[in-house]
Amino acid sequence: MRAAVLRDQRFTVEQIARPVPGPGQVLARTRACGICGSDLHLFKHGADIAKLGEELGAPREDLSAGLILGHEFVAEIVEFGPGTERRLPVGQRVLSVPFLMSGDAVLPIGATTRTGGAYAEYLLLSEALLLPVPDSLSDEGAALTEPLAIGVHAVAKAAMGADDAAAVVGCGPIGLAVIAVLRQRGVRHIVAADLSPKRRELAATMGATDVVNPAQAGSAVERLKQLAPGAPAVVFECTGARGMIERIIREAPMGTRIVVAGICSGADTFTPMVAISKEITLQFVVYYQPAEFAEALGALASGSIRWQPLVTGRIGLAGVADAFKALEDPETHAKIIIDPRI
Amino acid sequence: MRAAVLRDQRFTVEQIARPVPGPGQVLARTRACGICGSDLHLFKHGADIAKLGEELGAPREDLSAGLILGHEFVAEIVEFGPGTERRLPVGQRVLSVPFLMSGDAVLPIGATTRTGGAYAEYLLLSEALLLPVPDSLSDEGAALTEPLAIGVHAVAKAAMGADDAAAVVGCGPIGLAVIAVLRQRGVRHIVAADLSPKRRELAATMGATDVVNPAQAGSAVERLKQLAPGAPAVVFECTGARGMIERIIREAPMGTRIVVAGICSGADTFTPMVAISKEITLQFVVYYQPAEFAEALGALASGSIRWQPLVTGRIGLAGVADAFKALEDPETHAKIIIDPRI
Repeated sequence: MRAAVLRDQRFTVEQIARPVPGPGQVLARTRACGICGSDLHLFKHGADIAKLGEELGAPREDLSAGLILGHEFVAEIVEFGPGTERRLPVGQRVLSVPFLMSGDAVLPIGATTRTGGAYAEYLLLSEALLLPVPDSLSDEGAALTEPLAIGVHAVAKAAMGADDAAAVVGCGPIGLAVIAVLRQRGVRHIVAADLSPKRRELAATMGATDVVNPAQAGSAVERLKQLAPGAPAVVFECTGARGMIERIIREAPMGTRIVVAGICSGADTFTPMVAISKEITLQFVVYYQPAEFAEALGALASGSIRWQPLVTGRIGLAGVADAFKALEDPETHAKIIIDPRI
Repeated sequence: MRAAVLRDQRFTVEQIARPVPGPGQVLARTRACGICGSDLHLFKHGADIAKLGEELGAPREDLSAGLILGHEFVAEIVEFGPGTERRLPVGQRVLSVPFLMSGDAVLPIGATTRTGGAYAEYLLLSEALLLPVPDSLSDEGAALTEPLAIGVHAVAKAAMGADDAAAVVGCGPIGLAVIAVLRQRGVRHIVAADLSPKRRELAATMGATDVVNPAQAGSAVERLKQLAPGAPAVVFECTGARGMIERIIREAPMGTRIVVAGICSGADTFTPMVAISKEITLQFVVYYQPAEFAEALGALASGSIRWQPLVTGRIGLAGVADAFKALEDPETHAKIIIDPRI
């Protein structure tokens, strides 16, 4: 099969062996896979991230073996491995949370050399985790389930009350997913900020009630304080930029809950005393619960969240290298979908 | 009246004018006042803290005017100002949360040059905030209400479930108050850590179920993971040491809530990605609600929390300078009480 293999910060399309499903696993054919911000992160900082993982007890990664990214996928069932229940038919379009159960291990699909992600014609999935995709939802729409689930989870962890007002700092795909979910939940004030005009436009499309350019008009937090003075504030940090947590802490009103969804992989600096003086809560979030993933799929399938405008490009495996360059410019693209069949 | 005035990192006992109570205020005579860790902090870093306060919008402090510290006090009513209700008699022993309402301003007693704290014979209090001290409670016991309220509040903010296990990092007065409250709440695992043998001994006296010396036996978090594997973990950071938040994040199990009560006033460094990968919550806390302050008083008055062993010294105003030196050695003292009448 063909796969876009990442090695030494370069993608090459290679012919490699099609994986063989083990017990409880299925072989699936990729129909669509989104390029995620964390893929860009792994592309740039793969060695650092593997090192940090090792420090935290993860097994050693031999990145020279080549990494096949891709965890925002929709695929169709091709073949069942041993010990499977086979309740879904071959050819069924499916989603899965991006984890593969392999013996005692749970492998993150698209983030380890120990199993391949969906930047490839085929990948292995765990039968127990499969969700069928309703016919009403396109492949592109289905591939947006995973990033939308991040938004569902981040908003759930914020445990917002009826009067809470929200600021969303950074309108990349995670920020946009958070905005879409906040809108669906009926949050009255959703102030979004991004330096990019294109991202601000998408933020408004996704449901931000107020959009600011922090280079000109002050930050999202400052605007929120003007629009909803005294309201309990929840700030979603979706940039991953170094120093942004400190900046939000400094600007935030008393008692603000900051949900940190943007990934800053290196060391960052902040002033605990400022956070103490305001009784700030920093809630760090990652992934989602399986039920939240299913909720995201349901919201997309029913049309209650329409964030298909996010898709700005569609490429084959040969286009991955160029797409990673193009995604550096927020004006050109938001979400690019890979279809390995192209 | 006499007061121990802090100026340029030196205390001198000075004769100054007795303050005059304004509308809604009372003049009270100090009977006892504890020396708090934050007093030591103001002693060493007063200029930095005033600068940080200004950055956050507090009025400018002219520290050369001299600062009268002291916010852990019990006092007796001497004289009522205009517009007071006078429901308590002159001579009544009272406590108050350490804030003075003065016109539209709310001044932190013992932490600003704009009103004096209780390192003095007299101070001003707001009548509306006064709580009478039951006769059963000694002055020393009553003076412990304020630091115990910090513990009541920190534990309340942790919103612990029945199966949660607790680690307390640092057994100064705040850590010891947290331990006493956790014990009162019936928390099954309370692992405490401190480098000082004396502090570890006090931790056990206050109710820690397990006490570790982090220089020898690993940290409180490591021990907690051994003792209560898989239990939801709450870690109380009570050292204020630079780098401790990062260390706890690195050691903490998935989903740990870290309650930050120790005050680290400068910049600190951490790795957001590690906190993200574990969905850590950092809950910064300061002060308490008035109801928590009253709860602390009730617990001391009823004897349900006995932390009088914390008191290791009793001095007059002339002893303040030496006491601040002595408190640098955790083996000698935990809580020193000032009685300006001595």
